Amino acid sequence: MKNMKHKSLMLHKKHPGKLEVISTIELTTPEDLSLAYSPYVAEPSKAIHQNIKDVYNYTSKGNMVAVISDGSAVLGLGNIGPEAALPVMEGKAVLFKTFANIDAFPIVLDTQDPKTIIDTITHIAPGFGGINLEDISAPNCIIIERALKEILDIPVFHDDQHGTSIVTLAGLINACRLTNRKLEDLEIVISGLGAAGGNIARLLHKMGIRHIYGYSLEGVTSYQHYQTYDFSVQELLDDNIVLSSNLKTLPELIKNKDVFIGVSAKNIVDKNMIQTMHQNPFIFAMANPDPEISYPEAKQAGAKVVGTGRSDYPNQINNVLAFPGLFKGVLKARAKNINDEMKIAAAKAIAAIIKDDELHDDYIIPSPFDKRVAEAVSNAVYEQAKRDASK
Amino acid sequence: MKNMKHKSLMLHKKHPGKLEVISTIELTTPEDLSLAYSPYVAEPSKAIHQNIKDVYNYTSKGNMVAVISDGSAVLGLGNIGPEAALPVMEGKAVLFKTFANIDAFPIVLDTQDPKTIIDTITHIAPGFGGINLEDISAPNCIIIERALKEILDIPVFHDDQHGTSIVTLAGLINACRLTNRKLEDLEIVISGLGAAGGNIARLLHKMGIRHIYGYSLEGVTSYQHYQTYDFSVQELLDDNIVLSSNLKTLPELIKNKDVFIGVSAKNIVDKNMIQTMHQNPFIFAMANPDPEISYPEAKQAGAKVVGTGRSDYPNQINNVLAFPGLFKGVLKARAKNINDEMKIAAAKAIAAIIKDDELHDDYIIPSPFDKRVAEAVSNAVYEQAKRDASK
Repeated sequence: MKNMKHKSLMLHKKHPGKLEVISTIELTTPEDLSLAYSPYVAEPSKAIHQNIKDVYNYTSKGNMVAVISDGSAVLGLGNIGPEAALPVMEGKAVLFKTFANIDAFPIVLDTQDPKTIIDTITHIAPGFGGINLEDISAPNCIIIERALKEILDIPVFHDDQHGTSIVTLAGLINACRLTNRKLEDLEIVISGLGAAGGNIARLLHKMGIRHIYGYSLEGVTSYQHYQTYDFSVQELLDDNIVLSSNLKTLPELIKNKDVFIGVSAKNIVDKNMIQTMHQNPFIFAMANPDPEISYPEAKQAGAKVVGTGRSDYPNQINNVLAFPGLFKGVLKARAKNINDEMKIAAAKAIAAIIKDDELHDDYIIPSPFDKRVAEAVSNAVYEQAKRDASK
Repeated sequence: MKNMKHKSLMLHKKHPGKLEVISTIELTTPEDLSLAYSPYVAEPSKAIHQNIKDVYNYTSKGNMVAVISDGSAVLGLGNIGPEAALPVMEGKAVLFKTFANIDAFPIVLDTQDPKTIIDTITHIAPGFGGINLEDISAPNCIIIERALKEILDIPVFHDDQHGTSIVTLAGLINACRLTNRKLEDLEIVISGLGAAGGNIARLLHKMGIRHIYGYSLEGVTSYQHYQTYDFSVQELLDDNIVLSSNLKTLPELIKNKDVFIGVSAKNIVDKNMIQTMHQNPFIFAMANPDPEISYPEAKQAGAKVVGTGRSDYPNQINNVLAFPGLFKGVLKARAKNINDEMKIAAAKAIAAIIKDDELHDDYIIPSPFDKRVAEAVSNAVYEQAKRDASK
């Protein structure tokens, strides 16, 4: 592991950074120069000035995504500021390019004020085809994403909120396929109702699941604790997405449930707790790098399907399965936003990569390196966007 | 020309746009993914969090320039807005990459309010090693550049102001070499005291030239007209950079001068006017695409040296001779700003490319494709920055 840390530093030092902005055209003659710059660059400019939609025909906008962070909630590192967040945002841009051939550019902000972030992103938006928000602390991330979706006419997506929810849904779809259960019959506990957990709850509710309970630092989610929650958890209760429970502890709450989904803290679930769940439970223990319960322990306790955030165990719930194809689909369709139907289409497409005869306990989620995924997600999202547009 | 217009549209449609953001590393194995992204991207992030200067060692910041415009004064097209400005900014980024291997990224803004622009650029600055302002109308461009130079600790450069002044100075240095004149003896008329003209005056004054007169839409620059000028022209008068003149017309003003520098409007100078100038005058008629007087007419009237903004005549005063090498030098030196001494070093380096035995009327400015220029400018600016830093 020490070796890997050193290797990462050397990798980042080499270029340095991981990105390069290159020209797709050659400039070797005066004619080249006059076409790409003064005076004849005036032609695409005039065309766009006459018809603003031509910006998609004559510039990089249509394939360009901004990866934006204020550095307030970076990986497991917390509030480390914009400069220290930059390697992560560059890494995200590398993933966009590698998995979906999308040009993505990192923008790190020197402010953590939601109003200022909303204004800043609004002002720089004209050159981008989409906005990927990243590693912004809750509840600011929710406030910022909602405001920008109202203001901008390009897709805005906070991956920490929705990426995980899409891949988790894909995993649940396949876990149900494997065990002949119906999604809407599942009784679910979600531990951690921040950016990721709250949106997992919303997406699962959209799929017809009506028995979702919450657990967080404040304890079991309930109206009794109402005053201690931030507004996004209050909304989950008010909207009946997360049900209020009179139970007091996680062991009490998890008993007789079908699914545990953790986006919270390490080692808060033990074997005994899993043994009190319904038979063949699904455990998605995604706290990173140390999950709520380890893969081997969860299996030993009788979990049918175990997913984690780690690449060294099966069924890795990795956002990279969702966001590259998702953005590729909406960019291709020139959709103005990313809605729940598109996220569901993406989840179904990820799940469908695995054929019936391949599906088993340790293979409900495809590999992040499965090249079919981004293409399948892109096509499914594109088709959904076209259906939305024709309504 | 119609053919060239069509060619430009096709060129821009092909990719579309002219830029691509690529990864400098390969992602083919789980190990690659873990090094470039989660979990080991945490290492460079932690290093930067501990020592912010490490952002230059582990990210693309040190070689990344933002090319920023509000679309208010684009080429000869005027206020066409951010989307229509994008092809020009992408073109600028192509020039940065082609001539100096600098990664440059276009940012076009949906606001033309100077305060908002200053705030927006301040907020997105942490990921950039330098800011190139472009095609922002006067006097906002001056207000914005000055404010950002105060706020940010990275170089901020409005190319329309300074790029032209550097290359014009290079041209004057060589015109003086050619004719054995001294720079400080020159009596000069500058037509157009906007962003470019004002800074040409300032840089020439810095070189010891004390006889600079101005002409603009308001007429001959003088205290008589004071109340009609914007603040930047008032400053030129107040600082004694541009001398107040009692003369009324351009023909009166140009008489018995050595140099005419035009960054104004087409066809405002005729042959008769040139014939009233001192012997062997220098004419830099840079209005684009149609100069203040054409190259053949100026030569016929007795101009010793004629420079224009056009690539189809000798001595093209092209900004591309300055900004790529200039930025390369300050980025390499990690200079916090671009000062007059660096601009002068750049001008001298451009001039020195042409050897004594090569110098002639039609070759006082090197070709924009002369690969030696960016390297020479970069080295000269780097050395100057190092001298400044050691003070």
